[in-house]
Amino acid sequence: MKISLLLTGNELMSGDTVDSNSAYIAQSLKDIGVTPYIKKVVGDDLNLLVQSIEELCAVSEVLIINGGLGPTVDDLTALALSKATGSPLRRHPDAMSHLENWASSHDFKLTEPNLKQTDLPETCEVVDNPIGSAVGFHCLYKECLVICTPGVPSEFKKMVEQQVLPLLQSHFDIVVKSKVTRMRLFGMTESGLQDIINKQFPDWPKEIDLGFRVQLPVIEVKLSSYGEENDSLNLRWAEKLRVLLGDFIIGDDNTRLTQALNQTLLLNELVVTTAESCTGGAIAAEITSEAGSSAVFNGGFVVYSNQMKSSILGVSSETLQEHGAVSEQVVLEMAAGAIRLTNADMAMAVSGIAGPTGGAANKPVGTVWMAWGRKNGLKTRKFFLPMSRRAFQKTTTAIAMDLIRRDVLGLDTQVDYFRNA
Amino acid sequence: MKISLLLTGNELMSGDTVDSNSAYIAQSLKDIGVTPYIKKVVGDDLNLLVQSIEELCAVSEVLIINGGLGPTVDDLTALALSKATGSPLRRHPDAMSHLENWASSHDFKLTEPNLKQTDLPETCEVVDNPIGSAVGFHCLYKECLVICTPGVPSEFKKMVEQQVLPLLQSHFDIVVKSKVTRMRLFGMTESGLQDIINKQFPDWPKEIDLGFRVQLPVIEVKLSSYGEENDSLNLRWAEKLRVLLGDFIIGDDNTRLTQALNQTLLLNELVVTTAESCTGGAIAAEITSEAGSSAVFNGGFVVYSNQMKSSILGVSSETLQEHGAVSEQVVLEMAAGAIRLTNADMAMAVSGIAGPTGGAANKPVGTVWMAWGRKNGLKTRKFFLPMSRRAFQKTTTAIAMDLIRRDVLGLDTQVDYFRNA
Repeated sequence: MKISLLLTGNELMSGDTVDSNSAYIAQSLKDIGVTPYIKKVVGDDLNLLVQSIEELCAVSEVLIINGGLGPTVDDLTALALSKATGSPLRRHPDAMSHLENWASSHDFKLTEPNLKQTDLPETCEVVDNPIGSAVGFHCLYKECLVICTPGVPSEFKKMVEQQVLPLLQSHFDIVVKSKVTRMRLFGMTESGLQDIINKQFPDWPKEIDLGFRVQLPVIEVKLSSYGEENDSLNLRWAEKLRVLLGDFIIGDDNTRLTQALNQTLLLNELVVTTAESCTGGAIAAEITSEAGSSAVFNGGFVVYSNQMKSSILGVSSETLQEHGAVSEQVVLEMAAGAIRLTNADMAMAVSGIAGPTGGAANKPVGTVWMAWGRKNGLKTRKFFLPMSRRAFQKTTTAIAMDLIRRDVLGLDTQVDYFRNA
Repeated sequence: MKISLLLTGNELMSGDTVDSNSAYIAQSLKDIGVTPYIKKVVGDDLNLLVQSIEELCAVSEVLIINGGLGPTVDDLTALALSKATGSPLRRHPDAMSHLENWASSHDFKLTEPNLKQTDLPETCEVVDNPIGSAVGFHCLYKECLVICTPGVPSEFKKMVEQQVLPLLQSHFDIVVKSKVTRMRLFGMTESGLQDIINKQFPDWPKEIDLGFRVQLPVIEVKLSSYGEENDSLNLRWAEKLRVLLGDFIIGDDNTRLTQALNQTLLLNELVVTTAESCTGGAIAAEITSEAGSSAVFNGGFVVYSNQMKSSILGVSSETLQEHGAVSEQVVLEMAAGAIRLTNADMAMAVSGIAGPTGGAANKPVGTVWMAWGRKNGLKTRKFFLPMSRRAFQKTTTAIAMDLIRRDVLGLDTQVDYFRNA
């Protein structure tokens, strides 16, 4: 079913208002298996509105118009729909009684501009507004069901739930149920993912839509199918994908990387500590951003200067002098020091060059060493992440968290992150 | 000038992603006195894209297309523009060399899907992408200047600033010169700000447009005027606003709160340390997110459990038992302990209840104590910030940074944050 959206308002075009209504209606339409077809946004311009109504009704089965129902001169939706359909504006008795009720319950004295809200194209029927003064309305035009809704988000949401969705169900035979399987990954790029799937599954079935959504640092892979007859096909291919992507999968649906890590620690009854140089506390801040993190984290250290690495965590000055702050030996001593001070089960220590300055020929900006694991089983890795300071810190933080997750689960920690297929 | 926007991406239609790019370009176009004419959003549908390009180019002087430049099969912008204009896709040498440079500087091995990003309609010229792998491109079609831009917000913003606006200025006789004065504030709400300005300046001149842009935790206030004859009026009213808003102003133009703090510390040759409980390292992570932070920060502590507060920072167990972890006494001892261990000039210590659980009748979720200042002059404040865990952590972090800034500058630290006028 083709449902298009037409939003109107100068404030939407000027960028002063960010439109949240269209994301809301799109999410609501998911429940009936529909994705909006075309969305168009125009200012308070009568000709443009008339043209847009004509154009969108010609290619859609439903047009939801949002905004322009208010009492002021720049509220043009009823007039534009009247011009497009050739149905003249008439004071509508249902709109009038709604407005009178609204005014009396709000102790509000109606004036002539308010009454304008009750002048609707005469072929339209009223759609109740459970909150505001302006009613919605709907009519058929070019065999397209046009539904006009208020721009105020709270009024719009209520009207969608209570009026628009039931209206759609009463006009259309909505039996389509869709099945959606989601999995969330860390450590692959979108193009790498596409590439590996293309290579492994040249026979990917056309009944299963494959979609990616990047929500850094995670990528969501979504398999959608329509009709119950495809449910088992969807599950079968989801299983094939799970086998292919393996360790990179951190969870289903809305799993965040931090959530995956904290859950893993919690299930294994492990407490982690952090010893951070170049990430400056970001790993600890991520872990503690999740509710319930006190079960898996007691505290950590930000040792930004060499002096602090020594005085707080006991990294020997010989090690610092001989190998430099960004070295395997230093992160090993940092991790050991953090475990000693906190009695945590395991540690993650990182030291690197976030840039933009501080690099050298043998240790360029983007170099980072990590040491992690239990007191008697510390492991190390070196990464090279040449990117902006912020991206470096975010990526280092995410990799560190994933390495702890992998270590606890006994998965490969020498994984090739962000490889190209 | 009629500038239209065409955004593409299934994630925009499904409501999974809220589009912030069109608000950004609209705000940027204000500086050249233009409001976008039509905005259209469609999914990754080739026919719909081709039709939309034809339709919008017929009624616009400029069409900015956003999204669909990536390496995957659902990235269709170049192909759609090729079909609309009849200009065949060719591997573009400038796009190729950009991609090769990008790959080599990112230590990234190019594969066939990546190379697709270099196949552009042959009448197009490349628009540089200062950050990402996908170049933009532009060409003329139906006398309309078509500019294709990446959907990734950080890449889009940089391209708008550095490439799109100059391109528009080189193609059109944009004589409208505008004067824009910006100031950035922390600690006021948008409605509080609007209210105080309305009250204080009922005579605000119509020649000066006043705009607000919320970029949490900061609000930007922008005074725009058109025509050189209004330049001095703009400056005069900016000065009046500066006097009115006083301490809340942290800087001009793009100043971030962290930048304002670090600059203040640097100019005063002060080093700060952090002792964090409920913010879990976020204050340290913020400070170190700025390049050059090693001049003002050597290290800090995340003491999430009571045990860590005692064993690492030396908070006495009597104090913890008597007053609880979220108390004035505990944050004072945390701050003192952090200064003792690091020899920093000053400290910021925070302890609070981030929630969603852990509150009590006398200390509900959202309660937070802070202690800050120099060894012999520690100050304290209690705040109540009842909001989601993440919002609480972000707001607490921002207030802590602003309090250090204010303290160093000798400004009021008993300020009424987020008051309503």
